[in-house]
Amino acid sequence: MPRVSQDHLDARRRQILDGARACFGRFGYEGATVRRLEEATALSRGAIFHHFRDKESLFLALAEDDAARMADVVAEQGLVQVMRDLLSGESQHPADWLGTRLEVSRRLRTDPEFRGRWAEHSQQLTTATRKRLEWQRRSGNLRDDISVEVLADYLQLVLEGLVSHLAMGLPADDLEPVLDVVEDSVRRHRGE
Amino acid sequence: MPRVSQDHLDARRRQILDGARACFGRFGYEGATVRRLEEATALSRGAIFHHFRDKESLFLALAEDDAARMADVVAEQGLVQVMRDLLSGESQHPADWLGTRLEVSRRLRTDPEFRGRWAEHSQQLTTATRKRLEWQRRSGNLRDDISVEVLADYLQLVLEGLVSHLAMGLPADDLEPVLDVVEDSVRRHRGE
Repeated sequence: MPRVSQDHLDARRRQILDGARACFGRFGYEGATVRRLEEATALSRGAIFHHFRDKESLFLALAEDDAARMADVVAEQGLVQVMRDLLSGESQHPADWLGTRLEVSRRLRTDPEFRGRWAEHSQQLTTATRKRLEWQRRSGNLRDDISVEVLADYLQLVLEGLVSHLAMGLPADDLEPVLDVVEDSVRRHRGE
Repeated sequence: MPRVSQDHLDARRRQILDGARACFGRFGYEGATVRRLEEATALSRGAIFHHFRDKESLFLALAEDDAARMADVVAEQGLVQVMRDLLSGESQHPADWLGTRLEVSRRLRTDPEFRGRWAEHSQQLTTATRKRLEWQRRSGNLRDDISVEVLADYLQLVLEGLVSHLAMGLPADDLEPVLDVVEDSVRRHRGE
């Protein structure tokens, strides 16, 4: 396949994902009808489902795409920075990202089949978080009395709490010092 | 009003709350129809709505009742213990308690009017958590470089993450050591 065609396919795929992200975030999975997906992507259903087998595949691709972008930030700056970006609204698509994440949470609660399909896609963030923590440990910045696995689980539990907190529309102005406590609690301290 | 009558009213109220808790937990707020509430409480709709003005008032009373029971555990043993009970399934009505909590979370996300009504009821847990932390600080067990307000927000954020994690049916076997990290991060340490 000539290179120009592959570029075109990639761009089209990106266009569908970006439109679908906004659409799922706004209407939820069930509410994101094919007609609304057409409007949000400015493409016909034929064009959309040429790239993705069905709505479920499109949603999973989107969730995977978001997880990959989060994993990139984690690799560069750590999971606490992902949380800080979320608070300050400085992540690339903060509201949309949150919308996808919430839909994943909701479907995990209510759709056991989805749980199985999602499991394969959810390892990326865990892997990126652990790698980042291992690197921090080698640099001597991480506390060394707790395993990297436990610290990664801890940070992901706090992230889950933050997502839930924001989703419920609870005030988030006071959470910066809370994230300082979280960051401090994984660090190596003086005299240790 | 004679004492025996008040006791009878209290017992009836308890019977309604316990049945309704199971019913809301199982079917969700919208799914808990009056007919299902009748079945779950073994009482007629007349008897139920003699005690509670409407379904909304019943749900709020239930959420408040759960918050009060949680606040009692917090006052005695701290919020981390509430989380440990939740993990081990040793709280009095673990699944039901979780069900109510999830319904509160979901309605906070989707129902702005509910958010206002809930705000009045949600202060109990925050107040109990802060009081417990103040007592720990006076006993010299709490770190004293971070305010009680921030530490209370921190613990509540982790609780929210735990509730969300359990609700999504994610594996919880490995979370005990994570709660050890949480508990440790609010404690006063040697040499401080």
